[in-house]
Amino acid sequence: MLSITSPSLLVDKSRCMANIRSMKEKADRHGLTLKPHVKTHQSADIGRWLKETGIQAITVSSVQMAAYFAENGWEDITIAFPVNIREIDWINSLASRIELTLLISDIKSVSLLDRQLNYSVSAYLEIDTGSNRTGFNSNQTGTVFEAAASIRNSSKLTLRGLYSHPGHSYGCRSAGEIKAVHDHVREQMTGLKNLLISDSGSLKVCTGDTPCSSIAENFNGIDEISPGNFVFYDLMQTQIGSCSVNDIAVVLACPVTAVYPDRQEIAIHGGAVHLSKEYQYYNTKTHYGLPVKPGKDGWSDPVKGCYVKALSQEHGVLTCSPEFIQNTEIGDIIGILPVHSCLTADLMMGYHALNGEKINHIRASQFYR
Amino acid sequence: MLSITSPSLLVDKSRCMANIRSMKEKADRHGLTLKPHVKTHQSADIGRWLKETGIQAITVSSVQMAAYFAENGWEDITIAFPVNIREIDWINSLASRIELTLLISDIKSVSLLDRQLNYSVSAYLEIDTGSNRTGFNSNQTGTVFEAAASIRNSSKLTLRGLYSHPGHSYGCRSAGEIKAVHDHVREQMTGLKNLLISDSGSLKVCTGDTPCSSIAENFNGIDEISPGNFVFYDLMQTQIGSCSVNDIAVVLACPVTAVYPDRQEIAIHGGAVHLSKEYQYYNTKTHYGLPVKPGKDGWSDPVKGCYVKALSQEHGVLTCSPEFIQNTEIGDIIGILPVHSCLTADLMMGYHALNGEKINHIRASQFYR
Repeated sequence: MLSITSPSLLVDKSRCMANIRSMKEKADRHGLTLKPHVKTHQSADIGRWLKETGIQAITVSSVQMAAYFAENGWEDITIAFPVNIREIDWINSLASRIELTLLISDIKSVSLLDRQLNYSVSAYLEIDTGSNRTGFNSNQTGTVFEAAASIRNSSKLTLRGLYSHPGHSYGCRSAGEIKAVHDHVREQMTGLKNLLISDSGSLKVCTGDTPCSSIAENFNGIDEISPGNFVFYDLMQTQIGSCSVNDIAVVLACPVTAVYPDRQEIAIHGGAVHLSKEYQYYNTKTHYGLPVKPGKDGWSDPVKGCYVKALSQEHGVLTCSPEFIQNTEIGDIIGILPVHSCLTADLMMGYHALNGEKINHIRASQFYR
Repeated sequence: MLSITSPSLLVDKSRCMANIRSMKEKADRHGLTLKPHVKTHQSADIGRWLKETGIQAITVSSVQMAAYFAENGWEDITIAFPVNIREIDWINSLASRIELTLLISDIKSVSLLDRQLNYSVSAYLEIDTGSNRTGFNSNQTGTVFEAAASIRNSSKLTLRGLYSHPGHSYGCRSAGEIKAVHDHVREQMTGLKNLLISDSGSLKVCTGDTPCSSIAENFNGIDEISPGNFVFYDLMQTQIGSCSVNDIAVVLACPVTAVYPDRQEIAIHGGAVHLSKEYQYYNTKTHYGLPVKPGKDGWSDPVKGCYVKALSQEHGVLTCSPEFIQNTEIGDIIGILPVHSCLTADLMMGYHALNGEKINHIRASQFYR
């Protein structure tokens, strides 16, 4: 920590590897293929940590991210985002090199792709199981059937299966609630699979959220999972009930720049351009992260009675206990556990392992120049 | 717009130049030095637009940003952020090359700087005039006096004056409210100036927020202003009352990826990693931006009855009017006016002018590799 001069995102590789191994073992135990969503870390280096556990396929949220991971040796990539037809040249270029799977979230994409794809590509039908974001409403079975038929009639697309991101699991606040969402998603997905499978061929069911993948134990009818956040976890996931605070594998190291004992507040270099403006409630207060004390081999539990009260572009203001204030000086480093690690990682554009090793991120690569 | 394939931040140079010229003319009219805060655009190219109007000094929010603008020819830079003493080597390197001004927001910084600075540097005393972020509480005149004396006794620091960012103006919702905040800030700052000036020498008073700089007309006692957001403005500023929606100079161009007439919603490629999670309320609904129709020479007013309802990492979901849904297809481009242009610009790492010219950003420079 002594060498840190500016806000830096630290990753505890041992926690991160434990999270990855635990999810891979769970997937193996249930006969599931784990295709992690790499939007969380967006790092080729962390991608190699995934490979070490035997993971061979990944999920991404943009064509740009697919291109970066393809460049870094991944050959089986699902772009879990409604096809952006304007990126067709990039999609064709990728389809010529790797096993690419797309997401069909609007039936009109099928004919557009059929006309513009130069290569055969497999596709999931995206099912909206309750998150109301994208995909075909699971209740509109006629429309789902029609969309599946449309893909099957396409000369370029092969129907791989059904995909759902049950984002509504983020509203859960306990393991019981997560399991209830998961079981409802599973019922919807297996119902649709049975409907479509009677038509022809085999179909995979893929679901992909960290809460359900972390907590559920009944995966009957599911073939693949694509959680992303679990590699790092964060305060949002502890609040949902997906993990414990000791599973969180990243922390933002922030220099202290001013101490205000009168107000019981500390100003740090660490703001919205580092943490993101994602917030949560903590004892009825809004906060943007919780402080921890960094040490040689990691960091402490959250410091009691302290939280990030406000963020502006580069400033963070912490409300602190009198004890914490007394023991904090200008130039100290405070770690901040992020509310949403995906957004913090995206902003920070790179990581430092606890041994000082630098870990890369797509945003610092040639894909962002 | 036809060439856009992925989310892109468009800047209307004519609006941006009009915003810059208007603020410069106002500063000239009131005898103020305009030292714009470049944290909003973070662009050397847009820095050149500032220079075209005769602006010679700028304000930044980090040492990193100061180094980038120094590299791009700026010689008078204020780092309007409580000194991060861990960056002392970088500060010394800058102080050897340019006219650098620092902010003293905690009295303990003075002795740390006195020991570690290799060059003479000027400094503002930061005054907290009501934003409760950083600086010396304007009511604690004894402490302010002591801090000023400490700077004056330093062998390395020269007291340039008093600085305040009245961030509490962001809570205003009309020109009247903004003027009231401004007058209160002005009274506090001139009171403190008079207290300190009787001691010795001349002192500058600098205040720096976009709402007050845009709306106020009484600058008696103020010498310098350092607003930043005004170069672009955004929906937050229209809500505060600082500008009209036609002054907003940036828009995020987003490809449409799915259309859901049943739900009256449209999915776009454009999420939290493009717009940021900054939100506001619109007719009692939370939203993350308002859609406009892009044209050859700019974009339309916000489309009535439409707003960005939800953002996830890469997805945006728009609630739309039936008319808008009917006239929108996959592959269309929708412009999104950002709630907070500083954060959107920071995430987008670069701009496209309406003529297709690319405009740079610090994050895509060697300073972020």
